[in-house]
Amino acid sequence: MSKNLLTAPNGGKTILEVGPVRIGGEEIVLIAGPCAVESEEQLTQSGLHLKKAGVSILRASAYKPRTSPYSFQGHGLEGLKMHKEAQKKHGLLTSSEVMDPRLVQEAAEHVDILWIGARNMQNFDLLKEVGKCGKPIILKRGASATVEEWIMSAEYIMAHGNPNVILCERGIRTFETSTRYTLDLSAVAMARLKTHLPIIVDPSHAAGRTDILDVLCKAAIAIGADGLIVEAHPNPKESVCDAAQALSLEQFEEIAKGLKPLAESVGRKICL
Amino acid sequence: MSKNLLTAPNGGKTILEVGPVRIGGEEIVLIAGPCAVESEEQLTQSGLHLKKAGVSILRASAYKPRTSPYSFQGHGLEGLKMHKEAQKKHGLLTSSEVMDPRLVQEAAEHVDILWIGARNMQNFDLLKEVGKCGKPIILKRGASATVEEWIMSAEYIMAHGNPNVILCERGIRTFETSTRYTLDLSAVAMARLKTHLPIIVDPSHAAGRTDILDVLCKAAIAIGADGLIVEAHPNPKESVCDAAQALSLEQFEEIAKGLKPLAESVGRKICL
Amino acid sequence: MSKNLLTAPNGGKTILEVGPVRIGGEEIVLIAGPCAVESEEQLTQSGLHLKKAGVSILRASAYKPRTSPYSFQGHGLEGLKMHKEAQKKHGLLTSSEVMDPRLVQEAAEHVDILWIGARNMQNFDLLKEVGKCGKPIILKRGASATVEEWIMSAEYIMAHGNPNVILCERGIRTFETSTRYTLDLSAVAMARLKTHLPIIVDPSHAAGRTDILDVLCKAAIAIGADGLIVEAHPNPKESVCDAAQALSLEQFEEIAKGLKPLAESVGRKICL
Amino acid sequence: MSKNLLTAPNGGKTILEVGPVRIGGEEIVLIAGPCAVESEEQLTQSGLHLKKAGVSILRASAYKPRTSPYSFQGHGLEGLKMHKEAQKKHGLLTSSEVMDPRLVQEAAEHVDILWIGARNMQNFDLLKEVGKCGKPIILKRGASATVEEWIMSAEYIMAHGNPNVILCERGIRTFETSTRYTLDLSAVAMARLKTHLPIIVDPSHAAGRTDILDVLCKAAIAIGADGLIVEAHPNPKESVCDAAQALSLEQFEEIAKGLKPLAESVGRKICL
Repeated sequence: MSKNLLTAPNGGKTILEVGPVRIGGEEIVLIAGPCAVESEEQLTQSGLHLKKAGVSILRASAYKPRTSPYSFQGHGLEGLKMHKEAQKKHGLLTSSEVMDPRLVQEAAEHVDILWIGARNMQNFDLLKEVGKCGKPIILKRGASATVEEWIMSAEYIMAHGNPNVILCERGIRTFETSTRYTLDLSAVAMARLKTHLPIIVDPSHAAGRTDILDVLCKAAIAIGADGLIVEAHPNPKESVCDAAQALSLEQFEEIAKGLKPLAESVGRKICL
Repeated sequence: MSKNLLTAPNGGKTILEVGPVRIGGEEIVLIAGPCAVESEEQLTQSGLHLKKAGVSILRASAYKPRTSPYSFQGHGLEGLKMHKEAQKKHGLLTSSEVMDPRLVQEAAEHVDILWIGARNMQNFDLLKEVGKCGKPIILKRGASATVEEWIMSAEYIMAHGNPNVILCERGIRTFETSTRYTLDLSAVAMARLKTHLPIIVDPSHAAGRTDILDVLCKAAIAIGADGLIVEAHPNPKESVCDAAQALSLEQFEEIAKGLKPLAESVGRKICL
Repeated sequence: MSKNLLTAPNGGKTILEVGPVRIGGEEIVLIAGPCAVESEEQLTQSGLHLKKAGVSILRASAYKPRTSPYSFQGHGLEGLKMHKEAQKKHGLLTSSEVMDPRLVQEAAEHVDILWIGARNMQNFDLLKEVGKCGKPIILKRGASATVEEWIMSAEYIMAHGNPNVILCERGIRTFETSTRYTLDLSAVAMARLKTHLPIIVDPSHAAGRTDILDVLCKAAIAIGADGLIVEAHPNPKESVCDAAQALSLEQFEEIAKGLKPLAESVGRKICL
Repeated sequence: MSKNLLTAPNGGKTILEVGPVRIGGEEIVLIAGPCAVESEEQLTQSGLHLKKAGVSILRASAYKPRTSPYSFQGHGLEGLKMHKEAQKKHGLLTSSEVMDPRLVQEAAEHVDILWIGARNMQNFDLLKEVGKCGKPIILKRGASATVEEWIMSAEYIMAHGNPNVILCERGIRTFETSTRYTLDLSAVAMARLKTHLPIIVDPSHAAGRTDILDVLCKAAIAIGADGLIVEAHPNPKESVCDAAQALSLEQFEEIAKGLKPLAESVGRKICL
């Protein structure tokens, strides 16, 4: 394997500035929102509520990778337009997953940050395409990817022209079944040693349940994560996908408040 | 998860006819060739030799998914053209991996069978695209995909218009390190119970070594596989990728001969 | 790690003679029987029936490692005595798991072969004790043990005075849930490369189901196993443990017959 | 599986008192020391230094489970006596692994707390024996044990008369190789939901390296652990086993100091 050149630490840690948000700095960045874009109203309501809870980036995907072809596949371009409209009201930065290299440009024109899901971490043509799109990219670790492979996928994006990569740990596949995946926080520490990139943690997909989410968020900050990406929905039971792992907006707010003292104890800030 | 409709066994097993080759019938289909297309000469030499060894489909990919962006990425369209030219001389069916939904049509015009690699088993936009391309598709199981997820990915291709799917087990990621992946032959048996589709086995990527390949091929036929896809190269040491797992053409021939009695013992045939 | 001296192949393969049974020779050794000793009658009935089906060693454990302390823990010494009595009628060699170093001697006096279960593969005090007992030992691979660790555990037994070790692959723990464990047949091939010891396969515990057992048995012989250890019970639904994976005696007989041609195709014999 | 009765939460959390130490209360319990007992002097030096660093229980095992029979196996009874002698000088509580049911009594007479290693989590005869010994037991989770199985092993100890069980997460075996095992902190949260028992974390064996140990300790406290068990050695390079994961006593002291603010941020205390 060729040496990674662009992701290597080189004695520092990168702070990524996206509009008013600094990712990788002192402040812990909170990203939250529904799994999928369902309606403009859903986005507006989520954005307005989550803003008060310290969130600076709204998550909600217009495209959904689903195990079954018969499950809801996302609203696509319509969903992206809903993001654009809702943003006029809530004012947060917006983000969506992108899955198809042909749709990267379309997505990049409508939201502020794109993410690559775990299933596509080694979809190399997609990585090359987001390397050319000019928007910050959250790169989720594949469920069976080593830390080394994860970093090499970041290297793909950067080698194709986009230095704005944020690594995201979201759980690996193991034999344990009490959680949906196994959140590998050591990997966050290892990626910190090996790269200069900001790193965030997605405890929602890892756990697949909400009753341990507060302590997973705390542990993620303790391990050194620069941010969290969490599923929160105005009405979790009605979520079109992954309902079991979605917090209500109120639950998220409660958890976010509880993170402040811990963040400060490790020299970080949560602004809310 | 929605019920799978198209992949369910429905009391039978499908035989897929591709030119003169029947996949899923009495005969064990041998697919072999280099990891990647390197030159027209390499393909011709491989094809002519492997034909004598019972191979009916030549494998060699024009596109290569590589962990590092600095590794050889495949010859692309030029590689596909080499397949077309070489085929005039060796006369075998040809096959290549396809990774980018934008390049499916191009690939479908140049080779007879396309395969989806393990890293793309849940690249759903790619699955949809090959669903429309009219060529038989070998669908490799993802390294951390359950049997259920693998079958649902086949369902994607079929639900988008292409009933000609061949499942391929190629090893899953486990803690064991003496082999590159762990070949999960039980999964072949389980997929047989749950679907009507032809199933083949790739022992080369699973093992990542050649010294146990003969017995892995035998075990694959014993478990009920309809075919094998094996890496064989005119000069393994010079292979541009995965050199450690490539057999020489002579080694492949030797192994193929050795499979005949076992295949017959389970009511199958190997024609060479 | 110190070099293994006693298990290394040294240019040969060991044939272990236990009474009239040769393990590791041309003949595939069939070991079968209930999970646990339940009664003398159960053993007699199983032994007499299985003998006709080609079985030369009856399995049935007097001690049972159970996840819950409230589950049946085995009949212990009484169970061993039942083995002794039943043997007078069926005449097969007998075998039982042994779990407690204090009970190794007692077990060794009552049955012909002892086995170490997967949970105890690195119970080193037990390994040392069976190293002194003078009976052949079947050493099951731990569910998360590497091939290297498995062989080093055999080395423990041999270094403490007992050269009569039989390795047994019985499935490793992975993310896949359609089977109870994942049968790792490559590990059989790797252990063959690295040691001179006889190797058998336990498809029953690996699969945790009976509907794929016939092809798993075939694949095990194809990969080069010297024998099979299979759960078969006079009345599977009434089995005190692991009922889902137990064949009826008739089903076992049917499967065993079906193995003959395949065994012969790879130069082995099944005598029935 | 039978219902667990003794380990179920029943609306509370147990605080275990061992001499002056309360495990499971407000204070985070620090357990540290060498992997193995090497000499009385090593124990004395470690104990005196670590006491100043907030440690209340010295770890160092008289028995060592080693993959190879040719590796150092521990000083056994001599090691236990060294613990007894050294304790007169350092005054900390002492602890050792116990592996052999025949040696549980001997160990219980010499040290204050016994631990069951990961390899023996389902060594049920050992669990039963420590159930009768009257000393508190640290039960490490097996490297491939589910949370459910881990709790059922605690149930074994308790059902045999010993209510004083402390659960210990120490990493599970996965495909990731940058760390020795994968520390599964979600399992700590899940065990907290399902039991009333104190839970500690061993980041040393999980990581197999020292450069990420400080943040792993923090994350463990953040997730809700009641204590840490860490390898620290007067001269790590000279450690007879697991040298790569041992901190120096000074490094441990430094890390322990750094935990205070974080512990307080989650309502816990570290006394040093």
